[in-house]
Amino acid sequence: MSWKRLDRKTLIDTKFLKVYEDKVKLPNGNVIDDYSVIEKPNYSMIVALDTDNNIVTIDEYKYAINKIIHTLPAGHIEKGEDPLESAKRELAEETGYTGGEWENLGEYYDYTTKDSHRAHFIKATGVTKTQETNFDPNESLTQRVITVSELKKEIARGEWRANATLAALVAAKLLS
Amino acid sequence: MSWKRLDRKTLIDTKFLKVYEDKVKLPNGNVIDDYSVIEKPNYSMIVALDTDNNIVTIDEYKYAINKIIHTLPAGHIEKGEDPLESAKRELAEETGYTGGEWENLGEYYDYTTKDSHRAHFIKATGVTKTQETNFDPNESLTQRVITVSELKKEIARGEWRANATLAALVAAKLLS
Repeated sequence: MSWKRLDRKTLIDTKFLKVYEDKVKLPNGNVIDDYSVIEKPNYSMIVALDTDNNIVTIDEYKYAINKIIHTLPAGHIEKGEDPLESAKRELAEETGYTGGEWENLGEYYDYTTKDSHRAHFIKATGVTKTQETNFDPNESLTQRVITVSELKKEIARGEWRANATLAALVAAKLLS
Repeated sequence: MSWKRLDRKTLIDTKFLKVYEDKVKLPNGNVIDDYSVIEKPNYSMIVALDTDNNIVTIDEYKYAINKIIHTLPAGHIEKGEDPLESAKRELAEETGYTGGEWENLGEYYDYTTKDSHRAHFIKATGVTKTQETNFDPNESLTQRVITVSELKKEIARGEWRANATLAALVAAKLLS
């Protein structure tokens, strides 16, 4: 059932983006000469609830779509880093929240037709704000801590449009 | 607040994938010389319910992750094509279902840090199987028509892992 890779050309090879053009053989015998595979870094995305059961969300400007979107704290996983440790680091840097109980909800996929990276969804409960934020000055983030009830209303009004973010909320069973 | 593009290099320019390296100026005055933007085709994804309120789902092998995933009918929007017309065509080709009432749920985003394309989520209700499937022989699809209750059980067990698919179910208010 799997496709077999016969050859691979590397079209882009940078730290945060690799693009390959694979020659692949399909189970039906067909050969595709130029199937693109995009390799972005794996990332952690955190569904974090504070001690009052409010959710820690982020509004962030994204250049690729030239919009501010509602999203959740997230960040690249460094080489060799455990997804859960990465998540703790990112939540602290982006929001200043730490502590609580943590659970790894597993690996999810963004765009399986071309992208090979994994999104690791992580749930944290009972976090508290213990420190100042400390994120990349080139990131444009605003923190919003809102009730789960308000979050659900915003989603029902169609105000949340980032697919990974909505999927993470499903994985954390805030939406079901 | 928006970043300003000062220059753009085209690294990849094919029908289904364009990759740019932009020189951008940020509101804080910083200049980034090599910010990657990936342009994939926009696509429609269809949340289709039949006349018995069962949902039409797809199991599909995806080479980039070398796995079969649970997903929904979807396909690229041709240049100049209306997302809803694209959705009707894709549902018919991939599953043989047609007819019913259709609603465009709007534009969603897959990976806003780099990807500029849009996912158009479309809901169809009351569709019926009227024709044979007719999809690309290089696609490996199996159709599963299941109750919404069974779908929710599968999702609660963590068996659905494609973010756009989960987001489309939220947009269609099957998950809330």
